[in-house]
Amino acid sequence: MNPRFSAVTLQLPHWLESELPAADHIFATPEDRMGLVLRLASLNIKHQTGGPFSAAVFDLESGTLIAPGVNIVVASHASIAHAEMVAVSMAQRSLLTHDLGSLGNSGTQLVTSVAPCAMCLGAVPWSGVRSLICGAREEDANAIGFDEGSKPTDWVAQLETRGITVQNDLMRDAAANVLKTYKESGGAIYNGRSPN
Amino acid sequence: MNPRFSAVTLQLPHWLESELPAADHIFATPEDRMGLVLRLASLNIKHQTGGPFSAAVFDLESGTLIAPGVNIVVASHASIAHAEMVAVSMAQRSLLTHDLGSLGNSGTQLVTSVAPCAMCLGAVPWSGVRSLICGAREEDANAIGFDEGSKPTDWVAQLETRGITVQNDLMRDAAANVLKTYKESGGAIYNGRSPN
Repeated sequence: MNPRFSAVTLQLPHWLESELPAADHIFATPEDRMGLVLRLASLNIKHQTGGPFSAAVFDLESGTLIAPGVNIVVASHASIAHAEMVAVSMAQRSLLTHDLGSLGNSGTQLVTSVAPCAMCLGAVPWSGVRSLICGAREEDANAIGFDEGSKPTDWVAQLETRGITVQNDLMRDAAANVLKTYKESGGAIYNGRSPN
Repeated sequence: MNPRFSAVTLQLPHWLESELPAADHIFATPEDRMGLVLRLASLNIKHQTGGPFSAAVFDLESGTLIAPGVNIVVASHASIAHAEMVAVSMAQRSLLTHDLGSLGNSGTQLVTSVAPCAMCLGAVPWSGVRSLICGAREEDANAIGFDEGSKPTDWVAQLETRGITVQNDLMRDAAANVLKTYKESGGAIYNGRSPN
């Protein structure tokens, strides 16, 4: 008997892996890591495979890439498939654990092209990452028409209470430019509030 | 060449489909819908397939089930695989859209055994549902050791601003009892903050 409900599958766009350096490549600085993330966001626009958002999980100490992610909401028919969710899920799938803080290594870091929306922010503590670095601000995403949702005003402090350090505004101008490029290219601005 | 990053797959536990009535079954009242959700949460404990949480998406007007979900975090190695996220994703997969409000029907309703954590709350507006019904409260989940995260204190109003109605405390006692049963059975309480 065929199942009534099919599995939900989240998959990176076909072009993505060929854009990555070798698995042992060291992304030594925060700027190196954000540079990769912004390049993937730009490529996601160019290939028309999703929204102008990218993220990646790195080994905090060594600087190796554990997993990348880009926004694949529309292509995947999945509103949860934001870049941060994809990166975290790919990293957990790769390491076969739901907790990226459980590996006894130096910890993991999530680098995202835009500060997380309310959903992705809520996902950060569950993920087990120990560090979050953000490029553009929430208001830069709202400025092109996305609704990033309602976040606690003290969200940075709330993460730090849970043992997660936060760095905002890393390469913010470059990150915000990626958003503007998307808007100018006529990319879809989706929100879950289309009128009935 | 084998891909470096495998697809992430979210799949309902093997026992779940056989517990559902026929696809045209009408869940006429909120209590009927919550009844199904609480039964699936209990079965998820009994079968040891995940945390004590369940949710489902219904057609708001007809009362038919669009898709169920249960917590499959540990089994799926995926911290995003909370019941609400699974139910919404299964519904979107089934209807082939990232926006459950885009179908021109009377709208869709998410019924969840416990009020959403910060992540799942943030996911609600993106999902396109028009109605949210919650059983147990966040504090009932926190009471058995989960960390539901930091939510805006006015989260109900924030959803209603986005056109989503909220009903809390439906069958709260029965829903909280499911959580207690899990705790007493020695079920795993996971949080993404295991010390390094």
